[in-house]
Amino acid sequence: MIRVGVIGATGYSGAEIVRILSDHPSVELTILTSRQYTGIRFDEVYPSMTGVVDLVCEEFSTEYFCERADVAFIALPHKLPMEIVPELVHRQKKVIDLSADFRFKDASKYEAFYQTHTAKDLLETAVYGLCEIYSEKIKNAVLIGNPGCYPTSALLPLVPLLKREFLDVETIVVDSKSGVSGAGRTLALTTHFCEVNESFRAYKIAEHRHNPEMDEVLSLQAGKPVSITFVPHLVPMSRGMLTTIYVKPLKTVGFEDIYNCLTSFYSGCPFIRICPEGRFPNTLHVRGTNYCDIGIKLDAARNRLIIVSAIDNLVKGAAGQAVQNMNLMLGLEETTGLLNAPFPL
Amino acid sequence: MIRVGVIGATGYSGAEIVRILSDHPSVELTILTSRQYTGIRFDEVYPSMTGVVDLVCEEFSTEYFCERADVAFIALPHKLPMEIVPELVHRQKKVIDLSADFRFKDASKYEAFYQTHTAKDLLETAVYGLCEIYSEKIKNAVLIGNPGCYPTSALLPLVPLLKREFLDVETIVVDSKSGVSGAGRTLALTTHFCEVNESFRAYKIAEHRHNPEMDEVLSLQAGKPVSITFVPHLVPMSRGMLTTIYVKPLKTVGFEDIYNCLTSFYSGCPFIRICPEGRFPNTLHVRGTNYCDIGIKLDAARNRLIIVSAIDNLVKGAAGQAVQNMNLMLGLEETTGLLNAPFPL
Amino acid sequence: MIRVGVIGATGYSGAEIVRILSDHPSVELTILTSRQYTGIRFDEVYPSMTGVVDLVCEEFSTEYFCERADVAFIALPHKLPMEIVPELVHRQKKVIDLSADFRFKDASKYEAFYQTHTAKDLLETAVYGLCEIYSEKIKNAVLIGNPGCYPTSALLPLVPLLKREFLDVETIVVDSKSGVSGAGRTLALTTHFCEVNESFRAYKIAEHRHNPEMDEVLSLQAGKPVSITFVPHLVPMSRGMLTTIYVKPLKTVGFEDIYNCLTSFYSGCPFIRICPEGRFPNTLHVRGTNYCDIGIKLDAARNRLIIVSAIDNLVKGAAGQAVQNMNLMLGLEETTGLLNAPFPL
Amino acid sequence: MIRVGVIGATGYSGAEIVRILSDHPSVELTILTSRQYTGIRFDEVYPSMTGVVDLVCEEFSTEYFCERADVAFIALPHKLPMEIVPELVHRQKKVIDLSADFRFKDASKYEAFYQTHTAKDLLETAVYGLCEIYSEKIKNAVLIGNPGCYPTSALLPLVPLLKREFLDVETIVVDSKSGVSGAGRTLALTTHFCEVNESFRAYKIAEHRHNPEMDEVLSLQAGKPVSITFVPHLVPMSRGMLTTIYVKPLKTVGFEDIYNCLTSFYSGCPFIRICPEGRFPNTLHVRGTNYCDIGIKLDAARNRLIIVSAIDNLVKGAAGQAVQNMNLMLGLEETTGLLNAPFPL
Repeated sequence: MIRVGVIGATGYSGAEIVRILSDHPSVELTILTSRQYTGIRFDEVYPSMTGVVDLVCEEFSTEYFCERADVAFIALPHKLPMEIVPELVHRQKKVIDLSADFRFKDASKYEAFYQTHTAKDLLETAVYGLCEIYSEKIKNAVLIGNPGCYPTSALLPLVPLLKREFLDVETIVVDSKSGVSGAGRTLALTTHFCEVNESFRAYKIAEHRHNPEMDEVLSLQAGKPVSITFVPHLVPMSRGMLTTIYVKPLKTVGFEDIYNCLTSFYSGCPFIRICPEGRFPNTLHVRGTNYCDIGIKLDAARNRLIIVSAIDNLVKGAAGQAVQNMNLMLGLEETTGLLNAPFPL
Repeated sequence: MIRVGVIGATGYSGAEIVRILSDHPSVELTILTSRQYTGIRFDEVYPSMTGVVDLVCEEFSTEYFCERADVAFIALPHKLPMEIVPELVHRQKKVIDLSADFRFKDASKYEAFYQTHTAKDLLETAVYGLCEIYSEKIKNAVLIGNPGCYPTSALLPLVPLLKREFLDVETIVVDSKSGVSGAGRTLALTTHFCEVNESFRAYKIAEHRHNPEMDEVLSLQAGKPVSITFVPHLVPMSRGMLTTIYVKPLKTVGFEDIYNCLTSFYSGCPFIRICPEGRFPNTLHVRGTNYCDIGIKLDAARNRLIIVSAIDNLVKGAAGQAVQNMNLMLGLEETTGLLNAPFPL
Repeated sequence: MIRVGVIGATGYSGAEIVRILSDHPSVELTILTSRQYTGIRFDEVYPSMTGVVDLVCEEFSTEYFCERADVAFIALPHKLPMEIVPELVHRQKKVIDLSADFRFKDASKYEAFYQTHTAKDLLETAVYGLCEIYSEKIKNAVLIGNPGCYPTSALLPLVPLLKREFLDVETIVVDSKSGVSGAGRTLALTTHFCEVNESFRAYKIAEHRHNPEMDEVLSLQAGKPVSITFVPHLVPMSRGMLTTIYVKPLKTVGFEDIYNCLTSFYSGCPFIRICPEGRFPNTLHVRGTNYCDIGIKLDAARNRLIIVSAIDNLVKGAAGQAVQNMNLMLGLEETTGLLNAPFPL
Repeated sequence: MIRVGVIGATGYSGAEIVRILSDHPSVELTILTSRQYTGIRFDEVYPSMTGVVDLVCEEFSTEYFCERADVAFIALPHKLPMEIVPELVHRQKKVIDLSADFRFKDASKYEAFYQTHTAKDLLETAVYGLCEIYSEKIKNAVLIGNPGCYPTSALLPLVPLLKREFLDVETIVVDSKSGVSGAGRTLALTTHFCEVNESFRAYKIAEHRHNPEMDEVLSLQAGKPVSITFVPHLVPMSRGMLTTIYVKPLKTVGFEDIYNCLTSFYSGCPFIRICPEGRFPNTLHVRGTNYCDIGIKLDAARNRLIIVSAIDNLVKGAAGQAVQNMNLMLGLEETTGLLNAPFPL
């Protein structure tokens, strides 16, 4: 059994990693750390886990953590990971970091939207953990920058079409809608029940930090600068993310071309489900799963391609993809521990 | 007191009209009709109304209705209104129809998306009841085609900018999100609680009937054909509609130009609230009110204008605008009966 | 116009008072105070109020407040009101306090559940503002202890039956369910969206501070000690409170006796609606209103009376009843400003 | 692999059985029947199941079903099961029926609340499938009457205490709150989104059909007639059930007695979790699991015992318990296929 630890286990992403790993047949959870709940049993923080996880949350120290675990998931706010990752990598731990700290190739872009980067030399080493796109690199990686939830939902449908040069990249608009768990467990008025319930709004319009993350990946894939328009919205539900993408196709493309491009690109990918013509995703259909469902509408009369994708922001958008990355890094079957049957509702 | 009747009073739009009129100081509710609840007290169908509305739902007959009321609100599914409106107009009743039957100038467009129109001669007479845009015509109208909820939310921000030629009309994308009451009270699996709760999805992608309605108005205002891309989504909440609009501005426009255009256009309009720079609407802030809140983001780097509007789909998007139309038609103050204070949550 | 101020205007109860008073025809809102938002416009805190309320939140000082207002609503956490009320009363202001500080006649009970009472001499002066029960005293009051939301929902149905000696007071069980706004606007994990949504739980079981409040009123009404079992629960919705009461009736009572007792007791009370046999309240039917709906089931076979009441916890359970108290104190019609038509949904 | 079929697979309980069985290591799903969706792929009815379940819904016929499956789950409305069960039992199929048809020992009680029973001779054979209470009988059963959701939530905490004679059975009040999925997938105004959302109400007060079901089991366990007061309520959430039980304990009982009684009774039962003193269940903590969490409060001053239990109405309250019954009947480990890790939210 591979020994795995979760650093920052009591936030929503961390707890979701704990959920998945507690059912994972090839790994053993050996250490959970938490800044806020040090010394408290994990199942007191999440009583659903009573009888399932028996660990006490501990304070993080590199020394102690490295004795206890061979793989590290980091579910801390950005800035904290880059302070501890270099030492973990140095001690040959495999690291999957869910923050933005190791997602960018270009440190200046990170620094423009976050803060000074203090472990720049690792950016080259780190692999962007968008599993279906970078699986080969991930298999050999020691450090993963696990993608943001919004980028995951937008890049999975866009990248294959971009690579085939089906899209006019000047025209990409990404309108995303996320459940509230994406904002985490930290208290804020914007996630206070009565402020969210019966409420719908956009936020960080064209200013969200996932925008440069998407732009960098798309630019690398397209081989030229791409800068998309991105607006996230908050949906009064706990889990789920729907992304609606608008883009002008290049002239000669038909529905079959789009559909075939995606299905062939993702033919060996069990977590990507392309909807048949006339069907579209619903966040409820991927809730609690690692699936990304994609639906396509080609509006020929207006020469507009509309793509809709749905993921569970905490699973494929965070913890599930992180475990998928671990599986790839460890040479396990990609789906191990991630195929719990979807709920009908 | 002006005598007013509501035809189709027990659907959500009809009941919302009843709510507003029961507080209206200048009119008296004299007759409510319902196909499904004939003979049943209105407050048995809507127990919230116990002690407030004392009427029994009746079957509709032109003769009887015309004896009892001078103004008719029609909240029936499309097709039914065009069967009864000609006779009501003939008897000099003022009619506000909430269906699509009298929204189009061009009958062929209506017929392409609905069915054969059997009262085409009234399309010329009818006025599209988008109050802030067509107020002068409305004041003299005898028949109003009350706008759809999606068109109201999109046209109010677009029309002033279009008239000033600030927008590249080839690039308009309208991404709307609606609360569930917009689907009405008729039972359907798509509005069954467990299918909607914790669910988010798009529907009728680029095929919604409000698309040609918006296109016709925008084309008339622009003086040339406009055809927008429109995708509606369903939000797990009862009331509220948020519309996010993406459009390329024409080159020389700055934020101030946009902002000033809207504020000056709507300077005498108490129901339109333009958010200051950096602030954006939230459906919760207009819930239960007749307001339309509008926020603007000009992303100069990407040359993209993003406009967000919020309305209550049942009020400004249906019943509230209908009463506002009535007020204009009757020469009353436009806001009469529509200024109940907004709820903080 | 009577000049009214709200102390603690930016919590949910305070903001709801502002909503109601902004529509009230006989009073003028002249001052709003807030500890957290001093110097900030009220409509920045609650953007729904843009164009409706034009005041800036101010710091509270007795001197300044008394210059500006003749009536004071206090919507502060308990303990703070008793520090400022004596001076307000001394200056002949009429005061309606929404905290628990002036609800108890017996200071020792207050002190057992809250803290040392520093204004005990005013407890005699203060009137418990359960409007329909104490209306005569309220008319002459200068200081109101506005009832808690749970007590309002339980006492309104119980008091008339208790006075008629219909109930075996040893057997009263009160099982209440409240919307989340009852917990206020202060951030807490227990009101964080993802912790509440899709969640239902009991809390403070048989230990809630509203228990002794109900016990004191019931004991005074019964003329002997009454101690009920009370369990509150949290419902994943913003507004509304449903209370289910279980009690053994004394032997000779039939449904008609119960029904007639309540309808005759509340015959002149516009806000109390007794449901006919076989019908029961729903929080949705009182949402946003000052109504208390009451339904009755007499299970003769098991000799058990079951009473269900529904209120909006922020209106009849807080701000609405507070304004009703003000109306009574000022000699206005009891319903002034409180009869906005209920929403159908 | 044991071949299993689900009769009535497209209702919520049926679909939940499909979910669980699709992950079950010892059985193979071989046939799904549906009256409404005959001929349609199961994953078209529940798109979440795309790539997981590959079956087409079929019409039920005894002959064909018996060829295809050795175990039958029946998730049909009551009355239909008793028409097909005799033949299934005759052909030596093992049957778990989720309706009320085989829950009662006394046919007259069934007939008083449902309709004429047409397979009375099987009532003796059938075992009431409350797993933790009747496990020995279940192991040898060929026909299970799977308990109702409300009875499961109330009986699990009550039975052990009743058997120890800790409870004054004359005083039992059961106040239950259920998520909306309990009402099934059949369309009704009472489960229409806008009628449920932001709504809370009681229904079938002291008249629910689960009342006699609970009474019969409790009477058998107590060895004397027991008749409880039971009121169910509807919570605006999809899944979950919380039951609050009020009962007078017999005099000499303390908290430790109650706690020890439950923990020792359920010592070998992995799905029953007794909360330590001062902690209480939350439906969110059992969502999607087969757990029943139980919390206890002994209010000595008022001599009242308050018990709170939480289950997922579709899992422990229906499909999960049904599979647990199958496991017991087949000699499998009781927990097989039922230990998916709980979600943190």
